[in-house]
Amino acid sequence: MPFHSRLLSNGLQIIGETSPSARSVALGFFVRTGARDETPQESGVTHFLEHMVFKGTPRRTALDVNRDFDRIGADYNAFTSEENTVFHAAVLPEYLPQAVDILADILQPSLREEDFDMEKKVILEEIGMYEDQPMWSAYDHAKRLYFAEHKLGNNILGTPESITALTRDQMHAYFQRRYVAPNIIAAAAGNFDWPHFVALIEKHCGHWRKGATGREGVCETSGSGRFEVMTKDKVTQEHVFLISPGPPADSPLRYAADLLSMAIGDDSGSRLYWTLIDPGLADSADCSFHEYEGTGAFFTSFSCQPEQTEGNLKRVWDVLRDVQKNGIRAEELNQARSKVLSRVVRGSERPKGRLMALGMNWIYQHGYRSVDDELRAFEAVTLADIRQVLERYPLDRVTTLALGPLTQLSPVVCG
Amino acid sequence: MPFHSRLLSNGLQIIGETSPSARSVALGFFVRTGARDETPQESGVTHFLEHMVFKGTPRRTALDVNRDFDRIGADYNAFTSEENTVFHAAVLPEYLPQAVDILADILQPSLREEDFDMEKKVILEEIGMYEDQPMWSAYDHAKRLYFAEHKLGNNILGTPESITALTRDQMHAYFQRRYVAPNIIAAAAGNFDWPHFVALIEKHCGHWRKGATGREGVCETSGSGRFEVMTKDKVTQEHVFLISPGPPADSPLRYAADLLSMAIGDDSGSRLYWTLIDPGLADSADCSFHEYEGTGAFFTSFSCQPEQTEGNLKRVWDVLRDVQKNGIRAEELNQARSKVLSRVVRGSERPKGRLMALGMNWIYQHGYRSVDDELRAFEAVTLADIRQVLERYPLDRVTTLALGPLTQLSPVVCG
Repeated sequence: MPFHSRLLSNGLQIIGETSPSARSVALGFFVRTGARDETPQESGVTHFLEHMVFKGTPRRTALDVNRDFDRIGADYNAFTSEENTVFHAAVLPEYLPQAVDILADILQPSLREEDFDMEKKVILEEIGMYEDQPMWSAYDHAKRLYFAEHKLGNNILGTPESITALTRDQMHAYFQRRYVAPNIIAAAAGNFDWPHFVALIEKHCGHWRKGATGREGVCETSGSGRFEVMTKDKVTQEHVFLISPGPPADSPLRYAADLLSMAIGDDSGSRLYWTLIDPGLADSADCSFHEYEGTGAFFTSFSCQPEQTEGNLKRVWDVLRDVQKNGIRAEELNQARSKVLSRVVRGSERPKGRLMALGMNWIYQHGYRSVDDELRAFEAVTLADIRQVLERYPLDRVTTLALGPLTQLSPVVCG
Repeated sequence: MPFHSRLLSNGLQIIGETSPSARSVALGFFVRTGARDETPQESGVTHFLEHMVFKGTPRRTALDVNRDFDRIGADYNAFTSEENTVFHAAVLPEYLPQAVDILADILQPSLREEDFDMEKKVILEEIGMYEDQPMWSAYDHAKRLYFAEHKLGNNILGTPESITALTRDQMHAYFQRRYVAPNIIAAAAGNFDWPHFVALIEKHCGHWRKGATGREGVCETSGSGRFEVMTKDKVTQEHVFLISPGPPADSPLRYAADLLSMAIGDDSGSRLYWTLIDPGLADSADCSFHEYEGTGAFFTSFSCQPEQTEGNLKRVWDVLRDVQKNGIRAEELNQARSKVLSRVVRGSERPKGRLMALGMNWIYQHGYRSVDDELRAFEAVTLADIRQVLERYPLDRVTTLALGPLTQLSPVVCG
């Protein structure tokens, strides 16, 4: 069995999947903290802190961090979501010790005041950049509208106001609260020696402080059900999101939910593709299932010429209602399954793909799942499972947000 | 040895690299034809034809092509360059027969008049979209300026005029001339059975017609050396390209050239990174080595606020002159090497990565090169090889193009 796990005495979890046929190794630290763990005063601190992690430690300046990663040819990066902050690197097997050294070191950042002030400008620019991307902006606003007071609606980047007001000490307090050993998973996938990896993590992270884990406000929601039009003169196309409830990440229905979203809105051959894209009625159309701790949601979206918005909204609404009423056909399920199986397999062929699956499965499925476990779970999905998803999580219970030049849009079509 | 090759009697070349540890298979048809093989009247026909390949055959409508790929969960796509048109798909091993069937079928497209007229609009929109992306636009114009009358300067998309004027019969004549069996390579990489693949290709492609291969105008060039400012009021940042000569794709110096470009302009830790990006003087900065049949070139580029263009141009120029005069340091070579080795290895871990390497090496290196062959070639590069590249291909023999709001820019700094 290529899977291994070890819990250090400070609560830090180490997991690994060895694959001798791989020629590289991917490693990462999964910190179970994200935008949903922020207070309103801290909005954006998780993502800002992710940036600060690369700005240096007592042992390394920001330049050193860069140079040390470059010296070993590492492909490294990080990302922040509603629930996790992940730092990862892929390297040739011989550089594993250096990669662990750098990643473990930067996860105890100095958070120097001058770096904090400098990086604040970068974050504010990033917020501005995202605001210039109407699809992202619409996604953020729709998420907020859907989740309303639920903390999953928290904006990952924060607002210009919250970031401007944020102090270094607030960030440090957040770091102390959330970056505790029991809240962190060190993972590796690919070509590496498990005892050696454990020894490296023990050496570099064995002294990390303990602390409380978990999060508040984990509960299911089916969304506000509201309908809102946000007028943005500068934007030329209209961007529309319809969000409906879905199963949480640890639900056995997640596999059916994934296949259902693909049959509805994959970028080729789906209901939305044939309804909007193929006839040239919209520039983009998508349906994706997003899963979180405690709840989930289907994000259906499209963008088009403003004058076509009302017609398209009705068409999308008809698709959702038809699926809700009649489900999908066996042929659609099979096609979605073929695509997902192919994606799972192709994604698993790189250590980085396996690393992400390994970490996320440990967090959400509370254990290890091999590629074959995943494939079998998708293979087992039946039309009855799809029906169960629809019954429990009505697709037509939508929260709708349109962002673009339009000043109004008739919600009647959605009644 | 996991490599196999077979030449069919009509001249079609079959190659494959089997990897039993892979869980999928990637396959592709490499057609050795691109923008440089077009007459001025045909400008853009190669890329337009690539689109038409997906529009149907006597056996399949465009819808069928889509549906048949979707049914087997294929990850499929195509691209057109100056020299090649490549059609590829990645599938689970059990779907290899269907994937070969679809790809081979669409490579004998019907080129129906009505599809041609419809797709012409899509191509014209794509040209418009690219023109809206100033970095791409600058790249195209810089390439034209550098290559001048050399056919490598041909625009891949064509112009609105050439596409509008193009007829279905011109495309058909181009197809008849260039899509001949001896000009096509069928390749596969990953988990598949070689005799089975050969049998499939023989069955589906054995009857493809013969014809003449090769191309005209294969010769080395060191560029026009011109300096041009293209004023575009709508663009906010200034985009600058400096192109200098480099070795051709079959030169033993290509490995040194690749490492040199990385030391100068990789996106982290390079000369340009420390000179322009780290101090916040530019939004982007890059140096890449492009290799072609018969010649090669270094593309150095950056984008920045208009008022910083002159200063940055001088800085980039100083970097190029310093490298030309003093070469790079051993540490820089080693760092670039670590990055490239890591990229080659990571790229090789997916069948799709190997497929591309396999096809391109067959075309340009005239044979098979294993991952280890590639790694050894990069490992063997010395500072003396870098020096040889610089002596033979002067980095400071630049052709310069700036595109953006500026109306003039002093070429003096480049003298």
